[in-house]
Parts: sequence; structure tokens; C-alpha cells
Amino acid sequence: MTGQHGVEELLRSAASDERVVGFAGGLPAAERFPRRALTSAFLRAIGRRDAAALQYAWPEGLAPLRARIAERVAQRGVVVAADDIIVTNGAQQAITLAARLLMRRGATIGVDAVTYPSALTAFRTLGLVPTTATRASILYRMPVVTNPQGAGMDAAARRAVLASGRFIIEDDAYADLHFAGPAPPPLLKAARNRVAYVGTFSKTLGPGLRVGFLIVPRSLQARALRHKADDDLQANSLSQLIVQEYLAHNDFDAFLVRLRRHYAQRARRLMAAVRHHLPSWTFEPPAGGFGLWVRADDRVDEVALLRHSVRAGVSFDPGSSFTCVAPAADQPTTMRLCFSSVAEDAMDEGVQRLARVWRSTVRDRGRAPR
Amino acid sequence: MTGQHGVEELLRSAASDERVVGFAGGLPAAERFPRRALTSAFLRAIGRRDAAALQYAWPEGLAPLRARIAERVAQRGVVVAADDIIVTNGAQQAITLAARLLMRRGATIGVDAVTYPSALTAFRTLGLVPTTATRASILYRMPVVTNPQGAGMDAAARRAVLASGRFIIEDDAYADLHFAGPAPPPLLKAARNRVAYVGTFSKTLGPGLRVGFLIVPRSLQARALRHKADDDLQANSLSQLIVQEYLAHNDFDAFLVRLRRHYAQRARRLMAAVRHHLPSWTFEPPAGGFGLWVRADDRVDEVALLRHSVRAGVSFDPGSSFTCVAPAADQPTTMRLCFSSVAEDAMDEGVQRLARVWRSTVRDRGRAPR
Repeated sequence: MTGQHGVEELLRSAASDERVVGFAGGLPAAERFPRRALTSAFLRAIGRRDAAALQYAWPEGLAPLRARIAERVAQRGVVVAADDIIVTNGAQQAITLAARLLMRRGATIGVDAVTYPSALTAFRTLGLVPTTATRASILYRMPVVTNPQGAGMDAAARRAVLASGRFIIEDDAYADLHFAGPAPPPLLKAARNRVAYVGTFSKTLGPGLRVGFLIVPRSLQARALRHKADDDLQANSLSQLIVQEYLAHNDFDAFLVRLRRHYAQRARRLMAAVRHHLPSWTFEPPAGGFGLWVRADDRVDEVALLRHSVRAGVSFDPGSSFTCVAPAADQPTTMRLCFSSVAEDAMDEGVQRLARVWRSTVRDRGRAPR
Repeated sequence: MTGQHGVEELLRSAASDERVVGFAGGLPAAERFPRRALTSAFLRAIGRRDAAALQYAWPEGLAPLRARIAERVAQRGVVVAADDIIVTNGAQQAITLAARLLMRRGATIGVDAVTYPSALTAFRTLGLVPTTATRASILYRMPVVTNPQGAGMDAAARRAVLASGRFIIEDDAYADLHFAGPAPPPLLKAARNRVAYVGTFSKTLGPGLRVGFLIVPRSLQARALRHKADDDLQANSLSQLIVQEYLAHNDFDAFLVRLRRHYAQRARRLMAAVRHHLPSWTFEPPAGGFGLWVRADDRVDEVALLRHSVRAGVSFDPGSSFTCVAPAADQPTTMRLCFSSVAEDAMDEGVQRLARVWRSTVRDRGRAPR
């Protein structure tokens, strides 16, 4: 706990320091938010005679927004009704709602060996036990673009997950940022009655809006809505109307084409910089998302490495926060390097700083106790 | 459950029908939201170079907003630091977070005999057992303005609650709408280490913004923040910045003076209409808030009464949803009549419709089985 606590403090200080090249945090590129279009959407929303943007709404969310979301899900090959959509505060609330619907306390939840940290901690707080074993009670998966690796599941892996017969929490938060174009169909398509599907506008229009959504099997819908109402009555009316108006008056798919191109380009720049400055490190080119999951060629104390890095003006997300079980002592250091919010012209300098810190940390390792 | 389900359907259909005079729902007056000032606040928020309105923020909320909230709490006589504030999605999330922090599953939570329905259902979903017994494990109270009665606790009741030595969830959601002027100090002042304090901007600036806050004893702060992060990472950045900018550039207290006067006037109009059209019904004049808690002089089936009322163009909140235990068969019918969102010139007509339906329902009662 002390270790994680130290990590959070370091990342907070890094995030508030403009001199630090921030490969940590998984933040979208602020300059790519469609601010002008969202401002127009706000003005239409706030101008409504019924003041719906500021008033209470029902727990499930606004009907026209739910209809637009259902249309977007249909584009991915899954026919759902507007009534099947529950608007949530981002993907995180959808994930925790789904876990609470499906869980028995003390049961296991099957996750990838490295996975999204805030899902892991939420599962643990709920009393679920994350495991990489295949015989878990529930599965949590990101089939199209995983976090942190940015990889997709291949056909065999999809078949295996579906054949397990388990309930699946399908976290599709990065699906709109699948670099090669529109993402393949979600698992939801093949197993409508066993999948709780999670989507979001956080990675594209802005996480500050907190607009995500959840689709659960119809038999669980009433209970999901009760949980949502118990938790916070409803998602933000203002943000819902902004997203609704944005989708009604803008070509979101054309925006996504440009956005994917932008992030794919940043990913290429980061990969080139890592290959150049840290040639012995390895990674798989991501198929989408915000980050590169890298594996070093040696092992050092990651908190010390982060501390030295932040001092040298670069940050990263330590690998251990993504792992379900503590890595064995002989495993090399891993980390997530997010390209998403680093300007292209700062990328090379950032990796150079990291490479310098890495080499001096490896060199000094033997000299002092950790 | 069928009864409650029927009630929700009736209230949904009433809410979407402009011909219905809506005494149900506890909605603030849409025409009193400071829309122009909130629009200016939005434009300042969205214009920030760092795009903070659309970006991720930390789980505790934005520091300048927390500082402003701490100042407002200090005006009520309680010195808290900005760091003590956790920004939540409205009061509801603050209540459920507090309950989860303090609860043992299966434990009792002491509530008033009639109280806020969404707190009751949230407690039950969490596995807490609401009770009006004084020896509960935790207490849930609204000391300044209760919902549904709009009453405050007197000095003796405050002393008794404080003397109990229990943890208290203090729901102060309506404190800014205490008609007689700034509200008395909260229980938090006398028991900083035993009170989880809940506040909100929902009743004043707009519930659609979902900006509330929670103050917990310092020993519970870290755990409260972890729960908040697990649940949905953070409160809406955009709404937080809007409220922050609004408070920085507007005289909120002057706005509240006008708002209290407005609601006090609506309360008077509603009381006059009830006295005129239903002279045998009783109520206590509310000290603040949105509603009037009325007790009829007879008992009828409340779902049938609501159904007939909606058909006749008037709605109300049935009393049973506010009660911790089912009322005895000989208890008269109760209901909450909200004056908050009914225009003054519709008030009399609404109560007249209710009176007509009431009389015909009482008259027909004996004739047919329910």
C-alpha cells in the first residue's frame, strides 16, 4: 500500500508540473476535444424552454441520447433498443454497476494478467477476487482494444471466452479508437444474455463530461436501474444533453476518423523514440487506444525509477498497478507509456529523459539497498 | 412492489403530460435556475487553455471549488479545510458513500418515521435495515429542513441525537432553502468526528449539474475517496468548473435570498389552497424546502387515488414511499404536495382537482373491491 501511495503522490506532482513530459495517466489529448462543437451543443441545450439541462432526469438517462447510442451500437452489428441503454457516469460506473449486478461476495472475477487498474481496485473493494485462472465466476474483458496493451483478442480467444459460458463484463471503452477503422463486433453480439457491455464518450468527446453507458441482459435491467438510482439518481443532465446535441448536429464518425489518425500518428512517434533510445526494450504495436505497454530488459524498483524520472522531467504508469498478481522477482520492469496527451515534438525528449534515468538506475542498483 | 411499480408508472406519465398540475417529484422551479449566469460560467470554463472542463480530474474534485465549498460551510459555523470536501454526484451519491463507509451489513440505520425515499431504498439495497428505533447502529437525519415535512429539529431533538453517540449521516440538502434566512449550524459543528455531512447545489443551481459534496471524519477520508474513485473515478469536471466559476463571479447569497422568498411565497399559496379546498386536511407550515406534508381526514387506496388524480390532471407523491414501515390500516392517507415547480396561478386549480378526486374516491370506496 505504501508503494502504491508513493506512486500516486509522484504522479500527482508530475501531473501538475508543466515541465514533466507526461506519459502517465491515460489522458486524451486536450487539444483534440471538439470544443467549438460542444459549446454550440451546450448553447442549444441550455436554451431549451424546459431547462432540461439543469433539471432532474430519470435514472436510465435521456431518451433521445439513448436512441443515438443504440444506433451506434447497431453500427457495430448488435441490435439493441434505446430502452436497453443505461447512461452512466463514464465507463467506470458502468463497470462497477455490472460487477455488483453479477457478483457473489468472495467470488472470483477472471481478468487478463495485466488490465485496467481502476477495474481491479473496484472489484477488490466490492469483495470480488481478481484472478487470471480460467474458471472464474465472472469474466472481465476488453476484446477490441485492451488497456494497457492496446491489443485486441484474436478469433480463438473470443471463441474461448464465449465457450466458457460465464457472464462477461465487456469493457469496450477504447473501441472508437481502434486505429484500423471501425472496430469489429463486440462479444455482446454473440452472447446478448451473458454480456454486460460498457461504452463511453470519455476517450473521444472528453472524460470530464462523464457520459458512458451500460447494456445488461434484459432480465437484469430493472435491478441495474435500481442500483443506478440508489447510487446517484441519474447521470448528469447537462452532459447528456450536450452529447445528445453534439451527436445530432455533427458527423461524429468523421471526427473519429481524424482522431484515430491523430492517435495512431502519436503511437508511431512514441514507438520510434523507444526503439531509438531504449532499443533493448520490447513492446507490441498497439491496435488502438492511448498507450504503449513496454517491457524493459532488466528489473529495478519501479517506485524509485518513477521518483527519479519525475525529477528528471518524465512520467509513466508503473506496470505493477496493472497486474492482477505481483510479478515474480525475476520479471523485467514493465510500464505503460501513454502517447495520447504528449505533443509530438515533446515525445523524443521525454523518452530520452526516461532512457537516461533508466540507465543510471540500473547502474546504481547494486550500490545501495532499496 | 407492484404498488410501487404502479406509482412510478403513474408519476412518469404525469410528469410528461403538460396538462397535469405536478405536485409530485420534488423538482426545483426550472424558471429560477440562473441560466444566464451559468452560461457565462460555462463559457469561462470551456475557454480555459488546459480544457479542464472536458479532461479527467482527481476523485476528490477541483481544488478551487472545494475551497469555495469549505468557505460556505464555514459561514454555517464549522471550520473545515478545502481538503475535507469530496465533490460528489449530488447529495444522493454522498448519502450512499457515507452509508457504505459506516455500515456493517445487516445493521440498522435509524431514520425518521417519514423520510427521503431514495435514501431508504439505497440503505435497503446496501443491506442496511431502516428503523425508527432509537438504538440503531447509524443515524440518518435532516436537522434543518426535513424531506418531506420541511421541518427542522428543535434543540431537544438535536441534543438527543448528539447524545446518542452514534455515527450520523447528516443530510443538509435543503439547508440553503431555509425560508427564515441562513440555516442554523449543522450537527457537524458539534460532532465533527461522528458526522458524515451531505450538501448539494441541486436544489438551487440545478440538479442536472449533479454537484453535491460530502465531509467525513478525517479518519475515513482516504476510504471515502477510494470508494468514490471505484464508483465512477470523479464528479463531472464540466459541472464542477461551472459551479466554481458561478460562485467566483456571482453573489450566490443574494441569489439565495430571492430564491427563498420565491419558494416561501409558493408554499403560502399552496397552504392557502389546501385550507380552502380541503379544510379537513392537516399539515405543519414548512420551515423550508420544496414540499408540504399533508394528512387527510380519511384513508383510501393511495395508488387508486393517484391514478384518478393523474387522470383528472393533478399529481402528488404518495405518503407510503416516505415511510420506513407500512402505515397501520387505520392511519389516514398522507402525501407530499410539492409547491416548488408549480406556477402560482396553477396552484389553486391543482388543489381543486385533487379535492374533487379525493371526495369522489372516498365516496366510491365502499362500493367496489380494490
